[in-house]
Amino acid sequence: MSRYANRAARLCTHLAGQQLDAFIVTSPTHLRYLTGFTGSNGLGVVTRRDTYFLTDPRYRGQAAKQVRSARRIFTHRPLLEAMEENRCLSYCRRIGFESHVLTYQQYRVLRKAFPRKLFIPTSGVVEKLLLVKDSAELEAMRAAMRITDSVYTEVIGLLRPGMREHDVAAEISYRQRRLGAEGDAFDPIVASGERGSLPHARASEKVIRKGDLVTLDFGCTVAGYHSDLTRTVAIGHATRRAREIHRLVLMAQEAALAAARAGIRASELDAVARRVITDGGYGPAFSHSLGHGLGLHIHERPRVSALSTDTLIAGSVITVEPGIYIAGWGGVRIEDDILLTQTGSTVLTAAPKDLMVL
Amino acid sequence: MSRYANRAARLCTHLAGQQLDAFIVTSPTHLRYLTGFTGSNGLGVVTRRDTYFLTDPRYRGQAAKQVRSARRIFTHRPLLEAMEENRCLSYCRRIGFESHVLTYQQYRVLRKAFPRKLFIPTSGVVEKLLLVKDSAELEAMRAAMRITDSVYTEVIGLLRPGMREHDVAAEISYRQRRLGAEGDAFDPIVASGERGSLPHARASEKVIRKGDLVTLDFGCTVAGYHSDLTRTVAIGHATRRAREIHRLVLMAQEAALAAARAGIRASELDAVARRVITDGGYGPAFSHSLGHGLGLHIHERPRVSALSTDTLIAGSVITVEPGIYIAGWGGVRIEDDILLTQTGSTVLTAAPKDLMVL
Repeated sequence: MSRYANRAARLCTHLAGQQLDAFIVTSPTHLRYLTGFTGSNGLGVVTRRDTYFLTDPRYRGQAAKQVRSARRIFTHRPLLEAMEENRCLSYCRRIGFESHVLTYQQYRVLRKAFPRKLFIPTSGVVEKLLLVKDSAELEAMRAAMRITDSVYTEVIGLLRPGMREHDVAAEISYRQRRLGAEGDAFDPIVASGERGSLPHARASEKVIRKGDLVTLDFGCTVAGYHSDLTRTVAIGHATRRAREIHRLVLMAQEAALAAARAGIRASELDAVARRVITDGGYGPAFSHSLGHGLGLHIHERPRVSALSTDTLIAGSVITVEPGIYIAGWGGVRIEDDILLTQTGSTVLTAAPKDLMVL
Repeated sequence: MSRYANRAARLCTHLAGQQLDAFIVTSPTHLRYLTGFTGSNGLGVVTRRDTYFLTDPRYRGQAAKQVRSARRIFTHRPLLEAMEENRCLSYCRRIGFESHVLTYQQYRVLRKAFPRKLFIPTSGVVEKLLLVKDSAELEAMRAAMRITDSVYTEVIGLLRPGMREHDVAAEISYRQRRLGAEGDAFDPIVASGERGSLPHARASEKVIRKGDLVTLDFGCTVAGYHSDLTRTVAIGHATRRAREIHRLVLMAQEAALAAARAGIRASELDAVARRVITDGGYGPAFSHSLGHGLGLHIHERPRVSALSTDTLIAGSVITVEPGIYIAGWGGVRIEDDILLTQTGSTVLTAAPKDLMVL
């Protein structure tokens, strides 16, 4: 069975458990996962008998190449309406849809086109399938992470006082593409000096100065899959305080990496890192979650936070990224991506972690 | 009155005409237009008395700077629910929402939080305000277009046989950022040789060869506003056919530029360009619309196509981008951005248009 047919079959098993006869996929990311299609206008319908894929005729060539395990339908009509004339939902009564993706307007179109069907709002159905990565997914993620690791090495080679944060971000984007990335995983974060105290600072016009700590947080995508890496480096020299805080964040991160394995609760993993930082006297300064699931989405399940109810399972990829943020001073964050296994975890990112003084 | 207060007032006038007491803004782009907020989690409520802006406490500092003309509300709760405890909808009965943006799940949250209110699905309300650009908007668009024009000049200076399309796209993104763009307007299109026959080809691994025509279609954003430019150049030499087709596309484009003014129907403007290409014998090879509105969205109103029912008005910015696409051979497209005026139009992009042989 092909990779995509296998995924649709897993979805079907799930549908049976929820008494659903069919499932409508409108998220482009989830459609890519289930059919391989990467275009902008597509719709998937998974029933217990068949998988249908609908798009418009612009994508005839692309769909013929990408979508092999579904019945392909080309139509000039709005795709949700076209399901009707193509009888995609024959014999189906209870039909699940992605209620956190479908707009109200699209929902009205559905109701009008199929007045006798029962549409059941769902959320998190395909997201559940994404929890465990198969070998093709891991291959794409490893490729993305290799690019990000290499670009980190290149960029610390050219970081120097006088550069604007924006220019560093431009170098990161450029170099990731040159090494084969489809694009950035998100707008690169380059936060220097006091701006380091903002965990999600985008790159700004600020000029990087001698004595600044600089947090670089970036990633790329390969075949839709994300990498996500953070390192904090020092420019010119590092104060004793900077060294202490960096060491504490690194200890917290290493403690979490050592504890990560299938079977541990995500909230407990968060606590492992948080304990180290709290014991070091900086508890409140670690103001966000330990990490997040990573894959086709930059943020996906499992949740890796103090409030998470998820238990980690083998085959998930998560980030581990503790940080300390001090308003008016700056911040330090260190992030790796790891694959969870039965007995522990494999760290997928490889950039060096000791505090570099550039 | 500030720019944002003025926009909210225009929206209010519109609400009165539709017997709406309030309007809920969930599109991040429209929220930026109405309040100035650029963060990721925000909600706007425009009533006949007040404008409210809701976000979470992470954005306290940013909102204080960006959002001056609305009542700011910070809450840890989901924003749609928080409207209730903050009494944003008191005295309002008929409440419009953006039905093409709000998800089904969000709609259910609204219904549950406000069981006695009437929620009226709308679409295209804020989009209508966007039709006429004010001076601040035009300034941002002109800045984006200047960057794109400059990068075009830089990039044709380094285009040569042996480069991959991907590498050219990476140069474009990099150079736009370096000149001050927030980012790309969309993934740059670099389509060489036979790939030029695909109007929306993204850049690929293909190597650019001597004799290829190369279509470059790219833009950037400044303060959220887009530029969008296309030129087709020849590598090494241009065949007679390439020159003829380029000349025909350019004639069609110039004819449309000369005809563009407030008061003309968009379908008629499309016809002006299409007639030139049809008379030249390539009618069916111009397989898309003449252009589209441009601003905070890369595609917005007015529609500029054969099927459009819009009449062009002064103050709109549109693209004018005829093309000829021949499977197995390649394609040519030429695109400028123009501002419509009462008596004609102002061409905002300035890159040279004669066929360059590089």
